[in-house]
Amino acid sequence: MLASRSPFALRSAVRSLSSGYASVFHASDLTIKTRTSPPREKSPKEQLAFGKEFSDSMLTIDWTRDGGWGKPVIEEYGDLAISPAATGLHYGIQCFEGMKCYFSPSDDSLRLFRPDLNMVRMNSSMQRLAMPGFDGDEMIELLKRFCEVEKEWVPKGAGYSLYLRPTAIGTHPFLGVDVSDHVKLFVIASPVGPYYPTGFKPVSLFADSTNKRAWPGGVGSFKVGGNYGPTILPAKEAMEKGFNQILWMFGDDDEVTECGAMNLFFVVQEGDKKVLWTAPLSRGDILPGVTRKSIIDLCESWDGIEVRETFPKMPEIKKASQEGRLLEAFGAGTAAVVSPIERINYNGFDINIPATGELTSKVWDELNGIYYGDVEGPDGWSVRV
Amino acid sequence: MLASRSPFALRSAVRSLSSGYASVFHASDLTIKTRTSPPREKSPKEQLAFGKEFSDSMLTIDWTRDGGWGKPVIEEYGDLAISPAATGLHYGIQCFEGMKCYFSPSDDSLRLFRPDLNMVRMNSSMQRLAMPGFDGDEMIELLKRFCEVEKEWVPKGAGYSLYLRPTAIGTHPFLGVDVSDHVKLFVIASPVGPYYPTGFKPVSLFADSTNKRAWPGGVGSFKVGGNYGPTILPAKEAMEKGFNQILWMFGDDDEVTECGAMNLFFVVQEGDKKVLWTAPLSRGDILPGVTRKSIIDLCESWDGIEVRETFPKMPEIKKASQEGRLLEAFGAGTAAVVSPIERINYNGFDINIPATGELTSKVWDELNGIYYGDVEGPDGWSVRV
Repeated sequence: MLASRSPFALRSAVRSLSSGYASVFHASDLTIKTRTSPPREKSPKEQLAFGKEFSDSMLTIDWTRDGGWGKPVIEEYGDLAISPAATGLHYGIQCFEGMKCYFSPSDDSLRLFRPDLNMVRMNSSMQRLAMPGFDGDEMIELLKRFCEVEKEWVPKGAGYSLYLRPTAIGTHPFLGVDVSDHVKLFVIASPVGPYYPTGFKPVSLFADSTNKRAWPGGVGSFKVGGNYGPTILPAKEAMEKGFNQILWMFGDDDEVTECGAMNLFFVVQEGDKKVLWTAPLSRGDILPGVTRKSIIDLCESWDGIEVRETFPKMPEIKKASQEGRLLEAFGAGTAAVVSPIERINYNGFDINIPATGELTSKVWDELNGIYYGDVEGPDGWSVRV
Repeated sequence: MLASRSPFALRSAVRSLSSGYASVFHASDLTIKTRTSPPREKSPKEQLAFGKEFSDSMLTIDWTRDGGWGKPVIEEYGDLAISPAATGLHYGIQCFEGMKCYFSPSDDSLRLFRPDLNMVRMNSSMQRLAMPGFDGDEMIELLKRFCEVEKEWVPKGAGYSLYLRPTAIGTHPFLGVDVSDHVKLFVIASPVGPYYPTGFKPVSLFADSTNKRAWPGGVGSFKVGGNYGPTILPAKEAMEKGFNQILWMFGDDDEVTECGAMNLFFVVQEGDKKVLWTAPLSRGDILPGVTRKSIIDLCESWDGIEVRETFPKMPEIKKASQEGRLLEAFGAGTAAVVSPIERINYNGFDINIPATGELTSKVWDELNGIYYGDVEGPDGWSVRV
């Protein structure tokens, strides 16, 4: 049952496998190549735009079916030499992760946030595309070494971080639609600034009844490249209609799945209860976001809010809004953390939502506190480099 | 309505646009770079395997949002320098075509088969991923020039051809999920031998009730990379169960959509009629194959067979088989042309099919006759280089 191979359900499986891979790479084999060109110029941090500027180095590890994993290398950031016949360019054999390295002023440390979840998800994405698995603990160690090497690239201050992009692509030069015999795993890094430099900016969503981001039996629960490209044109069309992003629905009863490239949450009043409502992972069409899971974990530990993981349906959301019970709505993901929603257009009807609500702000504060080491989060969430 | 943007429905739109693009490239601007290394060694043609060996040259054309299309270049085949942040490596901004260049012994010519259809589909795939369009006639002219340059690489003989792989990838080094500001269009070529060197080899299919290749509202009707990678693991699992390929179904009533990376056809007896049954393009989840369309076009011109483009349902196929009315089944695509099917496993039940049937053989003979110039096909099908 591929559809139910949810990455976070795979966690124990991947962990138990980590010593059992046919081939593993080890952080202790890392080579750091001497740079031959001077460091790149850094933009003033106020001018940073997401994902446009890259740090001096990249981490690469190659795998072949015959030779297994090669040794990890940190080398100068630069173009990759890729065969024009590489499976990663033709058949979408590519997956990635989004992570951030934060500077904590409390102890002058660099920190990662729940990197173990990213490693589990990347393993599951790679294996879903018939790429090899790897030992997540070794990769976390390599990410720490990489962050140390690039520490001058971690911008300081609230909302600033070094965005890390672990990526895996098929590099086998073979046009058969088949398992890739060569794979490249690499990590690049991009310094990024606060998503909301002047305070929250709530977004508007267009509930798209034509285009479907993912579907049961597909790969919506994996962070594979092919899930993203097809969203760009619909998003552009939504923007031309005056909306910021798309709300993705599925099924005849317009179940709410995600928004843009984020997981989606609603806060609804039910009698004297507040319910935090989000789509479940069980059907295999929802991306198991690290921010999503962390919000659920936090809210389950908090009083006064009940977490409900079942698909919200747009007619229910509309009804809750009309009855004054739709209290908050927000997207959640690594880039924006939380993104408050103030309006959803559904079948031509505008659902207006109070923004930015109490829970949205509380989640934002708590997560940012943990990211930057100002708040002591649950064990293992904030990992020192 | 993106879901209904069927590539072949787009044909007139793309044609009428071809003089109206913001930017076009022209075959007359082609530069052929002088080789600096000796020609590669050619394997004996009997040893050719699909898509593993490549010709000496490649055709490349770059596009940028600011500068439009650059000039086409035929240069030495070799690795591409691609930014590790390129959108084509992260977000599945990649699409391709499969075509063949045939040597015709009747007049010593090289020929392409219905290249206009590939150009229409490639335009539609690129535009679906928010990449620029191009003038298909100019691209056909470039493909002809490319085949002339590589003419020594076109193997001679029945079943032999030079497989052409036009590909487009996003090359913009930007991690935002957004329109790609840089695109590379390239063509590589691989000499290939007959798919059935010793006569037809019928295949067995596993009807997969878990994994779905495509879905309404998705991009199954476009030849984009993300449609292919996710099929590899299920196909591997089917092979481990003893089947050659997957039969893809959709919906609660197990509609038949495609098989492997091919369109799928059934020949069913209904009273005194023979019906050729295949999935329609109207819902947007079926790849508009050039071979598919050509088979439909041929059968519509032939007596004794009625073409029916509505979704066959597996229970109907099973019933037809049990009543002795399932006469033939075959997959269709550029690589294999037609691939006769002898067995389909559906919910644990084996449907056995006579193979290779009369229509399968007739289609095979007719198409191969046209490919190699032995048979005069409809106007415009066989295009001399």
